[in-house]
Amino acid sequence: MIREPLAHVVVAGATHGNEYTGAFLARHWLRDSSDLLRRTFQTHVQFNNPEAFRLCRRYVDRDLNRSFHPSDLPEGNEAYELSRARVLEADLRKRCNGQLPDAIFDLHSTTASMGLSLVLTNRTPFNLMLLAYLRETFPDVNGYLWEEPTAKPGFFNSLSGKGFAIEVGPVANGVLDARMVMATKALVSSCLDFIERWNSPESFFSLPEKVPLFCFQTHVDYPRGADGLPDAMIHPLMQGRDFQKIEKGDPVFLGFNGRTIVWNEEPVWALFINEAAYYEKGIAFTTAQRVEVTLPS
Amino acid sequence: MIREPLAHVVVAGATHGNEYTGAFLARHWLRDSSDLLRRTFQTHVQFNNPEAFRLCRRYVDRDLNRSFHPSDLPEGNEAYELSRARVLEADLRKRCNGQLPDAIFDLHSTTASMGLSLVLTNRTPFNLMLLAYLRETFPDVNGYLWEEPTAKPGFFNSLSGKGFAIEVGPVANGVLDARMVMATKALVSSCLDFIERWNSPESFFSLPEKVPLFCFQTHVDYPRGADGLPDAMIHPLMQGRDFQKIEKGDPVFLGFNGRTIVWNEEPVWALFINEAAYYEKGIAFTTAQRVEVTLPS
Repeated sequence: MIREPLAHVVVAGATHGNEYTGAFLARHWLRDSSDLLRRTFQTHVQFNNPEAFRLCRRYVDRDLNRSFHPSDLPEGNEAYELSRARVLEADLRKRCNGQLPDAIFDLHSTTASMGLSLVLTNRTPFNLMLLAYLRETFPDVNGYLWEEPTAKPGFFNSLSGKGFAIEVGPVANGVLDARMVMATKALVSSCLDFIERWNSPESFFSLPEKVPLFCFQTHVDYPRGADGLPDAMIHPLMQGRDFQKIEKGDPVFLGFNGRTIVWNEEPVWALFINEAAYYEKGIAFTTAQRVEVTLPS
Repeated sequence: MIREPLAHVVVAGATHGNEYTGAFLARHWLRDSSDLLRRTFQTHVQFNNPEAFRLCRRYVDRDLNRSFHPSDLPEGNEAYELSRARVLEADLRKRCNGQLPDAIFDLHSTTASMGLSLVLTNRTPFNLMLLAYLRETFPDVNGYLWEEPTAKPGFFNSLSGKGFAIEVGPVANGVLDARMVMATKALVSSCLDFIERWNSPESFFSLPEKVPLFCFQTHVDYPRGADGLPDAMIHPLMQGRDFQKIEKGDPVFLGFNGRTIVWNEEPVWALFINEAAYYEKGIAFTTAQRVEVTLPS
């Protein structure tokens, strides 16, 4: 396989203003970028949604991370995040010699127990090899392939074919969890080390033949009342089971009256269980299928 | 001790709109109050800040739980929460025969690891005995006496001399943690059982002689940069040490560069470590002294 060297890499935080892990790391690196210096390429730090960060909210008007080239964009929408997306894209092109960056790593956190996870939007060899490379150092890293069959979701990192969102959790919004911050920092550093090797024709990757990948299947919503609000919670025995297999009969929801609702369908792997921002999106958790993907040799 | 019977008790949620534990319990009880029925008194359920709940924010304009008779209120302030506080107080008087309620239990959650805790604003015998009573069933319940030497903070539950805020954590904002919701439900039920016994002259309380109480000492802020933002995080070894003793030399903060800052003062007990809403209030954690309070016999 021929490895096209990367020249411009972006590390971004505060795409969601209340996800402090990435926001404070971006702020740190904007003041002191020594962690990010590598010999063969340039790393640019982006602080994506300063206004949402100031307000400690996910977004001001709409989710910025669904605002980059989404397919269902209404005409004449004046949402702050849509203009911000245009500004960010223009700014990236200016910093990367008129091109979009070669790779983007966008730092997120989640209230779900996603551990250290990568949210990929494609199966490009670069991304799959990087997933396998990271798992050598961080065995708990999981890769989730968020390919929705319908519209393009318009993620920030989809501006580049290489790279992904890094999702760490559980972390509450508006909170710095030092363990998660330091783990994210180490993970980003490993991503940059990987690129340094990728860019060096003499270097050799010794990776396993296959890597597990969790592929998007569907979203499952809460049971809801007439007022549109959840009538049940994620069951205590379901909480924290992200990237685990859910079998028929496993408790999934618990009503406020104490009633348990179990899983009645085929086995699935569950992800993003009890993510705060997904209550309004109608997602209690996401289901996936686990596949073993063969790496390019 | 003569026990004046209580006639009207209030259980409130959504005083902070993004603290789902109390908000969803209040919604549940407004639809089905059977859990709350007792023989000797009436329980009223309050959903305190519906607009902040709709927005999934702590508050719209200002903290509602600092808006009840605060001593430092500016003239002519038109904040939503100040008018809401007046409406709530008038509504309570209407429901309680022109009086304020005899006791208020206000349900909160926190991102700090406060477990099941009670935030008292006074040492009235009712509250101290109830703290001791709850600890018989829930041995991990801790009482924190938030008596600030300066202004009256204007808490909702300070409308009544009896009762307190119930703070459970760690829970992320905008999230239902079923274990915490069910524990809060059980705790409220025990509070009402206590009142039932309090109101019955024939019933006898068999309580210990003394109960531990954590008394407010001071607030400790994060080290902050020129931009006003935290330059360090709660240290991983400090995280979760709520209601524990912090000794000289214990790690307290961790810089983004990896530098540790230790505790250099006299030993204290720490509370509200890493509460999301307190970043803007300048509180990384609160210090307290632990005292043993003698119960009235």
